[in-house]
Amino acid sequence: MPVLTNIGYLATCRGNGSQSDLHEIRDAALAWVDDQISWVGPQSSLPLEFSTEPTIDAGGRLVIPGLVECHTHLAFGGWRADEFEMRSLGKSYSEIARAGGGIRKTVRQTRQASKSELLEKSRSHLEAMRRLGITTVEGKSGYGLDRETELRILEVYRELEETQPVRIVSTYLGAHVVPDEFKADRKGYVDFICQEMIPTVAERGLADFCDAFLEEGAFGREECREILETGRAYGLKPKLHADQLSCLQGAELAAEVGAVSADHLEHASEAGVQAMREADVVAVLLPLASLYLGQPAANARRLIDSEVKVAVSTDFNPGSSPNFHLPLAMTLACSLCRMSPAEALKGATIYAAQAVDLQGQVGSLEEGKAADFAIIDAEDPNDWLYRFRPNACVATFIGGESVFTADEVI
Amino acid sequence: MPVLTNIGYLATCRGNGSQSDLHEIRDAALAWVDDQISWVGPQSSLPLEFSTEPTIDAGGRLVIPGLVECHTHLAFGGWRADEFEMRSLGKSYSEIARAGGGIRKTVRQTRQASKSELLEKSRSHLEAMRRLGITTVEGKSGYGLDRETELRILEVYRELEETQPVRIVSTYLGAHVVPDEFKADRKGYVDFICQEMIPTVAERGLADFCDAFLEEGAFGREECREILETGRAYGLKPKLHADQLSCLQGAELAAEVGAVSADHLEHASEAGVQAMREADVVAVLLPLASLYLGQPAANARRLIDSEVKVAVSTDFNPGSSPNFHLPLAMTLACSLCRMSPAEALKGATIYAAQAVDLQGQVGSLEEGKAADFAIIDAEDPNDWLYRFRPNACVATFIGGESVFTADEVI
Repeated sequence: MPVLTNIGYLATCRGNGSQSDLHEIRDAALAWVDDQISWVGPQSSLPLEFSTEPTIDAGGRLVIPGLVECHTHLAFGGWRADEFEMRSLGKSYSEIARAGGGIRKTVRQTRQASKSELLEKSRSHLEAMRRLGITTVEGKSGYGLDRETELRILEVYRELEETQPVRIVSTYLGAHVVPDEFKADRKGYVDFICQEMIPTVAERGLADFCDAFLEEGAFGREECREILETGRAYGLKPKLHADQLSCLQGAELAAEVGAVSADHLEHASEAGVQAMREADVVAVLLPLASLYLGQPAANARRLIDSEVKVAVSTDFNPGSSPNFHLPLAMTLACSLCRMSPAEALKGATIYAAQAVDLQGQVGSLEEGKAADFAIIDAEDPNDWLYRFRPNACVATFIGGESVFTADEVI
Repeated sequence: MPVLTNIGYLATCRGNGSQSDLHEIRDAALAWVDDQISWVGPQSSLPLEFSTEPTIDAGGRLVIPGLVECHTHLAFGGWRADEFEMRSLGKSYSEIARAGGGIRKTVRQTRQASKSELLEKSRSHLEAMRRLGITTVEGKSGYGLDRETELRILEVYRELEETQPVRIVSTYLGAHVVPDEFKADRKGYVDFICQEMIPTVAERGLADFCDAFLEEGAFGREECREILETGRAYGLKPKLHADQLSCLQGAELAAEVGAVSADHLEHASEAGVQAMREADVVAVLLPLASLYLGQPAANARRLIDSEVKVAVSTDFNPGSSPNFHLPLAMTLACSLCRMSPAEALKGATIYAAQAVDLQGQVGSLEEGKAADFAIIDAEDPNDWLYRFRPNACVATFIGGESVFTADEVI
């Protein structure tokens, strides 16, 4: 029954209230039993029963719920550094894709990667992420597209869940692009997803979510609708890559199919934003992808002003965001998407948890929730996200166990 | 006479040729005697005399010249996290300045800071910087403005130069803003700079450069000209904050006064760019400041296409760039300013060295130059700057001495 004491600023990040309300407690303490939080409050009110427990001193620092990374393409073969150079010199994402680069290149590299290669590469990224205070990570398939490779990726996620401490959420994203072997038969590929892949993934319990990429060059509205509705019929909750490069009424579709989240949203329509609010679809903003693609970032203010919950994520992937630094994405959410630091923090904790339907277990520091938290070398969330450092995280705990302690903070 | 061997990609960053020409050597080795490089070349050509020397194995990684950080406001009191939040919620830099925030707030905090406070805070930043591979740092005054505090800041830089390994370049920036006590007497403040401060700073050898901030709300063209010409008469080489928030023909002025560098340049005119090329003024781009201020970044392509040398820096300061992560600034220079990774690397090494007039001593890996270098956990510059990590630097050497070795790379 350890107790974390001397917490200068504890951001509980409880889900109720506005996006900016962190329900913070100054001079706080946090106690847990086994893997669950048993008490949170001002240290001066710490119940007597905890006074003889072993304590960990937070040094007056900021303590936050473990960060929830709710949108990554974690497992992939190879990298695409050459495309980064091409984009910097003026080539567009679409031009590169048409020339055989982009997602299709990673598909070729991922199909060639063995399970153990994918596993070790993903594991090393998860290890780096937990050093940043990240305790839950969603990972999508979608770089295999054929049966064998998609299942391999999802099996990698299951094995990671069992063999390392970061909590893993799996999403089947067969509808990432139409693979080359189905180029002349789009309908055949959608049928393959709906009739073969979704049933298999669901039956084997390999994913919690089904996602689709609604975009020119990827999938159309009706294709996405069919895929997500089929997924839902098999128990896979819907998510949607929506309105990233153009407005295709993705936000509206996400609301119509009851998606848990709609992600990207740079070009979402006003009607779509209203539909998301009514259907309580979480908006997942990915400012690193906007940055790497040289596009204007999504405007968080109009979403928040419309009472849509806004989550923040890196979109970690080898093309448009080869960057797993979630605190950097949060800082960019402030600079580029116009969120306040408090809003960005709630966006990377409780609302990110809602974006992966885990808001009952993680994402806030409340009695009964998982003892997932991070100690950050900062006075408060403003100080942390403003004063960017390579890594300001001092320690990370998952389920009450220490999974990272910094030797020094830089 | 140690030898660094097994270098997968050695970017010499020699100054000749185009900005993108790194004069790289694959499978290279690097030898030094005392603090100077004595040999650079393909490992297969390593002269026999080095074969019995102690070796350090670079593990097939990228080796670069120590990074040169050519534009920072290193020593300051306090922070301004509150303004970051205000800006994220929509307040402009100018509105915040008019309400008593901005540079003036830091001036108040810096005047209250003791020399030892400034020293320890700056020292901790330099320590973090050298872990990122940075080996030379320029620091400006300009948060004191009165005689006592400006001299205190410059003395801090001198003491840092003597007591820690990172090479320090000092710049007197009295012309940052007009301090409150001269609000009704701008001319009095310019006279104070020209008649009292510049002679004192020069006589005491406290700075190498004199800088000025040409901008609405800061100083006008003729004021900047008078200050920079006076500085030059006293041996302080000119630099200019030019065309950041509006086009005031700063690039032209920089060329006219023979400035070593013109910094920011978001709004530089075409004539200004041509004038800079003719006068060989280095353009220092500061994409982090553009990012934090929510403004379009400077376009590096038109500068490079006009044969202006482009350096990259963080602009580290407590307002518009509370961020000393130069490799992040380089990645942003690619994404936002449209430089290639190779161009960004030359911009943070040899051209940054030219921006502080040290191109004869540092900024490239050549025989006779200082043995300042960093080992980066990447295959090549593309791979490094594309695949952003909290810190990809494995080891840093200054004058042949190890000043940082990573335990682990994340």
